[in-house]
Amino acid sequence: MLTLYSYQDSGNSYKPRLLLAHLDLLFRLVEMSSRDGSTRTPDHLARNPNGKVPLLELADGRHLAESNAMLVHLAEGTGFIPADPYDRAKMFEWLFFEQYDHEPSIAVRRALTVYPERAELATPERMADLLERGNRALGVMETRLKDHDWLAGEVMSIADISLYGYTHDAHVGGFDLSRFPGIEAWVKRIADQPGHVGIDWRPEAA
Amino acid sequence: MLTLYSYQDSGNSYKPRLLLAHLDLLFRLVEMSSRDGSTRTPDHLARNPNGKVPLLELADGRHLAESNAMLVHLAEGTGFIPADPYDRAKMFEWLFFEQYDHEPSIAVRRALTVYPERAELATPERMADLLERGNRALGVMETRLKDHDWLAGEVMSIADISLYGYTHDAHVGGFDLSRFPGIEAWVKRIADQPGHVGIDWRPEAA
Repeated sequence: MLTLYSYQDSGNSYKPRLLLAHLDLLFRLVEMSSRDGSTRTPDHLARNPNGKVPLLELADGRHLAESNAMLVHLAEGTGFIPADPYDRAKMFEWLFFEQYDHEPSIAVRRALTVYPERAELATPERMADLLERGNRALGVMETRLKDHDWLAGEVMSIADISLYGYTHDAHVGGFDLSRFPGIEAWVKRIADQPGHVGIDWRPEAA
Repeated sequence: MLTLYSYQDSGNSYKPRLLLAHLDLLFRLVEMSSRDGSTRTPDHLARNPNGKVPLLELADGRHLAESNAMLVHLAEGTGFIPADPYDRAKMFEWLFFEQYDHEPSIAVRRALTVYPERAELATPERMADLLERGNRALGVMETRLKDHDWLAGEVMSIADISLYGYTHDAHVGGFDLSRFPGIEAWVKRIADQPGHVGIDWRPEAA
């Protein structure tokens, strides 16, 4: 059986949970957090030299890090990866955009807002910079979603699952999604899909 | 024919140039730079709403952004993507690691060191933080490369091409690669491959 080392409040950990739920795959959930040091213990560093979650443990005991790499691996051979080569290339474009432009502004601003131990890092200058960079990333998404249902191709792909992870609650970090009507409609579209689960969802104990 | 919008000094732009050279694919090079504003003109924003290079223009006029998405697209069906599903998953893990942990520390510290217009951003605190985070990323690579020739599987893949982009001249940004003998040997291994080209290489004018 698959095991997912995961922090429940993390959008990065939510991404593989959401895909696993859609794929109806059984998995064991092991909760840990970078906030209490559990991701940097010797045991976890042996599993993931980068000392982070999420981390996927395959049935044979081998490990895979990086949330978007898990999405690609788990989705291989399913409809969550577009068959058309250009659509698939655009899906990858969005996955890399998510880790470079979106997560480092939108997820980080959320973390600085809600985690008390990070409050001292939330200087006015940093928060203003993150707001500007996050709104720019949302603007890039809006350019696509203002007249398309999905980010890559004509069906929901892992690009949508990945970007949903930190977009659906971007308001927690101070982002006003009502400025981006294409994104707002897309967030609702994803939440309305059969098989969708929210960030609080956990699999039944295995 | 393919067109690559590219900034010659950028490791991100070097990555697709290096793969295109290995694949012996003809392409037209259009040089532009974020440093002179040419990547944020209306013309370029129409090509790439994210206003960046590199940007790949396919023969049919459609566009693809994100250097690592270009590597995946161009390498499909070639030996630069491992056939084994786990090796391929690890290749993606390294590609996402590159954009999240490696480039934002190692490439950014290099840019703050060599581009005069960014010197005022190079505060001692920021440079110390980037050094620490970059050395941590190099440490993750060393964990793999100290006893393996390649990052994913047993042959050179686009993970190696991607990480080479900003690792091969990390010393310019103040990183001491002699602390990472596995990385030093891997850098030399890549440079010794048939078909390798350096960051200064340009295709002959088409």
